[in-house]
Amino acid sequence: MQQPAASSPAPVDFEVEPEHYRHWKVAYEGPVARVTMEVDPEGGLREGYELKLNSYDLGVDIELADIVRRMRFEHPEVRVAVLRSGIDRVFCAGANINMLGQSSHAWKVNFCKFTNETRCELEDAAGSSQQAYIAACNGTTAGGGYELALACEEIYLQDDGNSAVSLPEVPLLGVLPGTGGLTRLVDKRKVRRDRADVFSTTAEGIRGNKAKQWGLVDDVFPRSRFDEKIAERAQAMAERMAAQVGKGSRVGVRLPRLTPEVEGRNRSYRHVTLTVDDQSRTASLTIAGPTADDVAILRKGGDAAHAAGAELWALRAYRELDDALLHLRVNNPTVGLVLVRTTGDAQTVLDHDAALVAARDHWFVREVLLHMGRVLRRMDNTSRSFFALGDAGTAFAGNLLELALASDRFYLLDDPDHVVHVGLSDLNEGALPMAHGPTRLQTHLYGEPDKLDGLVGNRALLEPEDADEAGLVTVRLDEIDWEDDVRIAIEERVSLSPDALTGMEQNLRFAGPETPESKIYARLSAWQNWIFIRPNATGPEGALTLYGRPERPSFDWQRV
Amino acid sequence: MQQPAASSPAPVDFEVEPEHYRHWKVAYEGPVARVTMEVDPEGGLREGYELKLNSYDLGVDIELADIVRRMRFEHPEVRVAVLRSGIDRVFCAGANINMLGQSSHAWKVNFCKFTNETRCELEDAAGSSQQAYIAACNGTTAGGGYELALACEEIYLQDDGNSAVSLPEVPLLGVLPGTGGLTRLVDKRKVRRDRADVFSTTAEGIRGNKAKQWGLVDDVFPRSRFDEKIAERAQAMAERMAAQVGKGSRVGVRLPRLTPEVEGRNRSYRHVTLTVDDQSRTASLTIAGPTADDVAILRKGGDAAHAAGAELWALRAYRELDDALLHLRVNNPTVGLVLVRTTGDAQTVLDHDAALVAARDHWFVREVLLHMGRVLRRMDNTSRSFFALGDAGTAFAGNLLELALASDRFYLLDDPDHVVHVGLSDLNEGALPMAHGPTRLQTHLYGEPDKLDGLVGNRALLEPEDADEAGLVTVRLDEIDWEDDVRIAIEERVSLSPDALTGMEQNLRFAGPETPESKIYARLSAWQNWIFIRPNATGPEGALTLYGRPERPSFDWQRV
Repeated sequence: MQQPAASSPAPVDFEVEPEHYRHWKVAYEGPVARVTMEVDPEGGLREGYELKLNSYDLGVDIELADIVRRMRFEHPEVRVAVLRSGIDRVFCAGANINMLGQSSHAWKVNFCKFTNETRCELEDAAGSSQQAYIAACNGTTAGGGYELALACEEIYLQDDGNSAVSLPEVPLLGVLPGTGGLTRLVDKRKVRRDRADVFSTTAEGIRGNKAKQWGLVDDVFPRSRFDEKIAERAQAMAERMAAQVGKGSRVGVRLPRLTPEVEGRNRSYRHVTLTVDDQSRTASLTIAGPTADDVAILRKGGDAAHAAGAELWALRAYRELDDALLHLRVNNPTVGLVLVRTTGDAQTVLDHDAALVAARDHWFVREVLLHMGRVLRRMDNTSRSFFALGDAGTAFAGNLLELALASDRFYLLDDPDHVVHVGLSDLNEGALPMAHGPTRLQTHLYGEPDKLDGLVGNRALLEPEDADEAGLVTVRLDEIDWEDDVRIAIEERVSLSPDALTGMEQNLRFAGPETPESKIYARLSAWQNWIFIRPNATGPEGALTLYGRPERPSFDWQRV
Repeated sequence: MQQPAASSPAPVDFEVEPEHYRHWKVAYEGPVARVTMEVDPEGGLREGYELKLNSYDLGVDIELADIVRRMRFEHPEVRVAVLRSGIDRVFCAGANINMLGQSSHAWKVNFCKFTNETRCELEDAAGSSQQAYIAACNGTTAGGGYELALACEEIYLQDDGNSAVSLPEVPLLGVLPGTGGLTRLVDKRKVRRDRADVFSTTAEGIRGNKAKQWGLVDDVFPRSRFDEKIAERAQAMAERMAAQVGKGSRVGVRLPRLTPEVEGRNRSYRHVTLTVDDQSRTASLTIAGPTADDVAILRKGGDAAHAAGAELWALRAYRELDDALLHLRVNNPTVGLVLVRTTGDAQTVLDHDAALVAARDHWFVREVLLHMGRVLRRMDNTSRSFFALGDAGTAFAGNLLELALASDRFYLLDDPDHVVHVGLSDLNEGALPMAHGPTRLQTHLYGEPDKLDGLVGNRALLEPEDADEAGLVTVRLDEIDWEDDVRIAIEERVSLSPDALTGMEQNLRFAGPETPESKIYARLSAWQNWIFIRPNATGPEGALTLYGRPERPSFDWQRV
């Protein structure tokens, strides 16, 4: 991890490899992985704070996200991962408070969003990949440390008369536990709301049997027997997970670095290109679709896909897209609008998706599909406007149509000389759900069930007029109007208040139900963002600003 | 409406009577009510702005809330209310922008919350009371004006080449439509999300057939035939609603002023007392339960309840509670914690509830129950901490137990010399749902279905230990500990950051599903509150601040 000067911070690098971890150790023993958190206090991503007591910053979390992702692809034999601390009597102190105190609002929000995505990815691994995480809280488990435990399937706490779980954010810092803690307390662990209220306002937390009785942890074990008991529980969990997995050996697939060509703010990966225009505050994000060769590999079945490994288009292209989205968010804060294009041949994309789905009995193909879903959900939660531009040569079909459906608008060229086809595959109909539950197609046609019925199962390529009739297109333009109309739409979009657009998009993108996952991004994060810019938290006399200093915070007592 | 000096504004009065409306006219013609909005530009609740073009402030909305409530109680014969404007070619311009520009953050937030509650109450009238609202948009329908229309069952727009519906908040003001507009667009009217994006960023709005085609309105009619067509639709709606109502005449029940005794910040109603202690930033809210006489009336049946009218305990006490909550919110901004007590006899409350439920075939009793539900939902959405204190003489049973379940904590005294009973009635089991769907009891015991099963249907009075075992009590204290422990809990609570508590409570109170109504308060309002304090909206160069002035807003382009 680089140590850039605080005055001119280097772009954040989201790619990391196990041999360079600074903060985590992972040991693999058959079906059990031991993930040990031992944060290097000197290893902060930025200067100005020390990562004491296993507190974390974005750099620590980038490594954790890498562990969770590699576990699924590189170590498919793992059924349970035991998360513990390498520091005696401290599990994790949560997000580093000095880091939060010195960070801009945008940094705090992006940091929380990334850590939330990592928690959701970790949490999802048990149900989707039969890789369950167990939190072995061998010491103080505070704030984001307890929120990390809450994302695990089971939580065990050392009973040593001192180790407690706690969410001290409200009483000590005047902010919320920002990594899903409140939602997971009442929605996942279903802790009684009045007890959750007491717990979340008790800075010192709760320990021992009371923590168990309130459902804050699954059990407490004495220090002398902690390791033994954890091993027992890990074994039992590994067996439960294994019972849900098909037989046969699984050989992991290594995920190498993506090594894009970087020129200034632009990044050229093999399939994905990100071009940033600071002047117009726009970026172009282009994904090259699969080729006939990519389809041919898949048609040979799951083993051939596995042999292709990280080079498989569906894995590589989406890993590149994921990395590009993260760079957009964190390293290009003033880009307001992303112009999304897909290149290639629509029928080839549909053939690709059909072959991918046909091979989904293979664990690796399933993981590839799950990964695609996570990347698309990261796009849904990215606070930038997205316009999908279906001009000549684009192929918004199948999995690539998801990019248009994830966008705020889809402009489609209707030019008889360059017919742009749109089409659906199985991947639009269930494999890549949004965080709030439904597919993007269901969400898009929430009010038009007849149109939805007409599309589902239809695998024909649609010409622009038909795609428009089917309800898939925001604006269909002929070749005469295309250039001017799209240019004007772009200019209008980038002239609007970025904050209002963020709020608007977050409300329009998720019609229909909510899930605990979507509640974390909607209800919880929205309130947290509000609190983060209130003077009571981050003003000169706010609780977050003054934490650790001798002065006491001074509050405006007005309730809003 | 008073015209207090802006420097020292008088408390807001939430009680109003039809003969004193300044902004609305209501004409009743059998099953059809004509509600005409004609805002007096000089009639603002505060100085400093003119309510031109049917723009509104809190005072205008207090009258609308009064209309909706009285319609249900005083005019039960009404099946359809046609909402239109008394100004030619202007339906409603939405919330007054100068009012928003000059208001504090807390005022804006409370204003939006009240207007949202009024919209939800209006919207609910069709399904619950067979009183449907039709928006007859006889002119420009902008911002909050269109949001008011969205809360109606049907929206009709005059097609005169000029009248449009619009949500210009994002493009013109840099804020969100704050009265449920975005949620109702995609969740209620199920407008396609990409079209909702175009619509919500198009300041001039959409008119004519395109508005109909996109589902923004139900139909458009030429100006020459507008009145005739609206009359037709109102007639058809009245018949549909009437088909769902039992036969027989319904005589309205007049709602007189509550006329509490007011002394400083304290308000003594007949059954409710609100006492404010500015020093400790707490308030005491005490509700006297029903008496044996109140039960005796109800036991005579629905007609006797109807004869008691506004004096019926269940109506009067909850109207008083509603008024007290509104005063707390708007006129007592620095009160952080409300100590809730109920006095009376627990068995009498259960007897009362049983008699009330037995009489619910009567339309008036149903309306009383619906009103109780709305008041309790107002409490759920009040951004103050609530501690229910079950000390000697309290009767947290039946409908009054809802006050404990709506509170963040319930302290219960366990003193053999003064046994405090707790108990359930039918009213805890479905008649008074929370905004997100479940009952307060279901939400409270979301994680303990066995305890929930053990309680449902149980009508026995529970002693403190049993109530605690049953999962109803946060902290049970004996008479020795009571005073100190409660005092310490109060002192701790009022020492915490008010903003963090608001966010925390909003996340812990609503475990489980979300509904469009709860999404309005959670997802939409939380984002709106965030945007309201961003410099891009309300800073010196923000869009809301500069609206109507020659300067153009200056944005920080960073996306958060």
